[in-house]
Amino acid sequence: MNVRELIHDIAVSARDASRLLARLEGGVKDRALRRMADDLEANAAFLKEENLKDLESARKSGLKGAMVDRLTLSDRVIESMARGLREVAALPDPVGEVTRMWKRPNGLRVGRVRIPLGVIGIIYESRPNVTADAAGLCLKSGNAVVLRGGSEAINSNMAIAGILRAACKAEGVPERAIQVVPTVEREAVLEMLVCEDYIDLIIPRGGEGLIRFVVDNSRIPVIKHYKGVCHVFVDASADMEMACEIAFNAKVQRPGVCNAMETLLVHRKIARDFLPEIYKRYREADVEVRGCPVTRDILEDVKEATDEDWTEEYLDLVLAVRVVEDIDEAIAHIERYGSLHTESIVTNDYSNARRFLDEVNSSTVMVNASTRFSDGYELGLGAEIGISTTKLHAFGPMGLEDLTTRKFVVYGQGQIRK
Amino acid sequence: MNVRELIHDIAVSARDASRLLARLEGGVKDRALRRMADDLEANAAFLKEENLKDLESARKSGLKGAMVDRLTLSDRVIESMARGLREVAALPDPVGEVTRMWKRPNGLRVGRVRIPLGVIGIIYESRPNVTADAAGLCLKSGNAVVLRGGSEAINSNMAIAGILRAACKAEGVPERAIQVVPTVEREAVLEMLVCEDYIDLIIPRGGEGLIRFVVDNSRIPVIKHYKGVCHVFVDASADMEMACEIAFNAKVQRPGVCNAMETLLVHRKIARDFLPEIYKRYREADVEVRGCPVTRDILEDVKEATDEDWTEEYLDLVLAVRVVEDIDEAIAHIERYGSLHTESIVTNDYSNARRFLDEVNSSTVMVNASTRFSDGYELGLGAEIGISTTKLHAFGPMGLEDLTTRKFVVYGQGQIRK
Repeated sequence: MNVRELIHDIAVSARDASRLLARLEGGVKDRALRRMADDLEANAAFLKEENLKDLESARKSGLKGAMVDRLTLSDRVIESMARGLREVAALPDPVGEVTRMWKRPNGLRVGRVRIPLGVIGIIYESRPNVTADAAGLCLKSGNAVVLRGGSEAINSNMAIAGILRAACKAEGVPERAIQVVPTVEREAVLEMLVCEDYIDLIIPRGGEGLIRFVVDNSRIPVIKHYKGVCHVFVDASADMEMACEIAFNAKVQRPGVCNAMETLLVHRKIARDFLPEIYKRYREADVEVRGCPVTRDILEDVKEATDEDWTEEYLDLVLAVRVVEDIDEAIAHIERYGSLHTESIVTNDYSNARRFLDEVNSSTVMVNASTRFSDGYELGLGAEIGISTTKLHAFGPMGLEDLTTRKFVVYGQGQIRK
Repeated sequence: MNVRELIHDIAVSARDASRLLARLEGGVKDRALRRMADDLEANAAFLKEENLKDLESARKSGLKGAMVDRLTLSDRVIESMARGLREVAALPDPVGEVTRMWKRPNGLRVGRVRIPLGVIGIIYESRPNVTADAAGLCLKSGNAVVLRGGSEAINSNMAIAGILRAACKAEGVPERAIQVVPTVEREAVLEMLVCEDYIDLIIPRGGEGLIRFVVDNSRIPVIKHYKGVCHVFVDASADMEMACEIAFNAKVQRPGVCNAMETLLVHRKIARDFLPEIYKRYREADVEVRGCPVTRDILEDVKEATDEDWTEEYLDLVLAVRVVEDIDEAIAHIERYGSLHTESIVTNDYSNARRFLDEVNSSTVMVNASTRFSDGYELGLGAEIGISTTKLHAFGPMGLEDLTTRKFVVYGQGQIRK
């Protein structure tokens, strides 16, 4: 079987499995999820053995320390996959939820009911735990999943999927609900992306390069975000201590992720008080600051921010700082340079809080909170399959609900159209 | 200015207008919509004059009767455009609706709020009334719209848009909220479809050829349906008279539209009673029936249905009929040949009604009602911008709600991530 036939076969059987999955009772899915968790833990030794093969090739091919780290299936990672699956099992089943129902003047009762999307393709890099996390969320939401991980993790991913599939089978869930593409050939990705008759949605998870490659080559709708250039705006009325805590947390607590702050905007009126305060803390944490002329006037040893800095996602201990005249200039800056991900205002002014929430149309807009909360778990969705900064279908962190769509159901008594 | 520059200029100014539109109060939008309606009626003579230019070119180029009909701006059509705008003004504003709000254990209040999508591109054929209908729905939902109608209607579309824009301006709505592409060059469509940085969504309205062209060339998400192969399944327990009325209405009341029935499925147990009844009525209405072998055994002068008939959208007084063993075979037929548009079961059996509603995952699924009700107005959405048979973003008839997306808003008190 060549790669094209292989992918076609996987996609067609995923579509068949998705029909059965859509009809499964919630209890069956939850039992399968819990068994998946148990079996991952019970087979930890086998998983680590298979993972060792990937780690050895990685070392041979000269993969760097951080990448090797992300590739490693430690006991802690295996436990966290199992815990994730159990948490998903405990969430309410999104399928079948009636989101609204109403009666028409002619007596028709019309409702909207959640159904699975069908087949989801996930294209990801490095971390093998995505295999279990994504499979769990797709199963819970009644979708079949086709997983295409990085070539460097192929043995780990196949091992995880093998255990998950066996658990499915034992609980009466079609095995083909979860499939890993069993080849490292890059052509396989391209073949997946043209299976528009069998795959309903592609979710790429990885760097901007991977995401652009997927978007450029896909005939299937793609849910994505390229980058997170998140802003915190410290307004004139901000509580100074709160502003310091939030600006520090948003940058430093985990700088390598998309909801970390990349640009700090400060109201001119408080810049002379606030900037030296926060800069002291940034220096202790080795944060490099690049500033606008006014910032550099206040903080003398700071580098100049160029126009590129305002759109840069550093994913590192680097921060761009700009002093603005007022909230209008702050909102205009976000509109011009932002990535529609997450923005936060620190303020004690009611009208400015309201204006920021109303006028900034990024996917997550906050008052007096760290941008780091922009995450499916932290916002209370129970889980996260990804984050979308395109406005179609979903916008922002996506939980189980965003892996479904809604059909109309109509209960009649013989109505015909006049 | 060449076509590329022209379209780029339109798209950029639409994006600018969309930022202002997103912040408009509902009252301003509604006043503009009502003024648009008044001004269309007041300028009926001018509209008919401009329309005459299109009609003359159409006749010269040999356009057929039905096409000329659809192109004509009669007083009746102008009144119906005005009525449509007033109805949309009377609907509730979808923008700003808080669809859910909850509190997290750390005190964060998290909500989801409807916001406009941004800029919508509509690509359509023939009927100039789409110009007013689509502009009204986009304005109400806070979106800027770029309208690209058929070349045969360019004078009519420009005249309508001119009146709508003047009404916007008079009511404080940015004129650039509504723009018609002022050229008949086909290249303009291609240029629109690559403006992914300025246009958020493309909705093609027209024949399957137009839709495929748009999908194949667009870098922007497209909401579409290719065709409606709608089914009615008459179950063994169906009330005979009700089944006749529904099967007749679904096929005959308006055969040229996507929610008309194309295939009738009949349970074997009642086929000998039901088919001769309904066939009598079909013959009176000049409906051509093509049947499976069992159907042809019962109705002797009926043509044979080939495999192509089961996937055909006739849009005409032609019907494919198949006798099935049971509800399983009916559902399997719909799954295999259907287009995910609309299906209806006529039954008096509770479990079969439930199974049909649960297991058929088309965008609209009905019990004891004509498929002709699958329409935004008839289902109670208040309006319809289109119908989607792809499951992403929207599935089924789309009203104002589906021209919006939701952002997360977070109200904090200084929370940081631990």
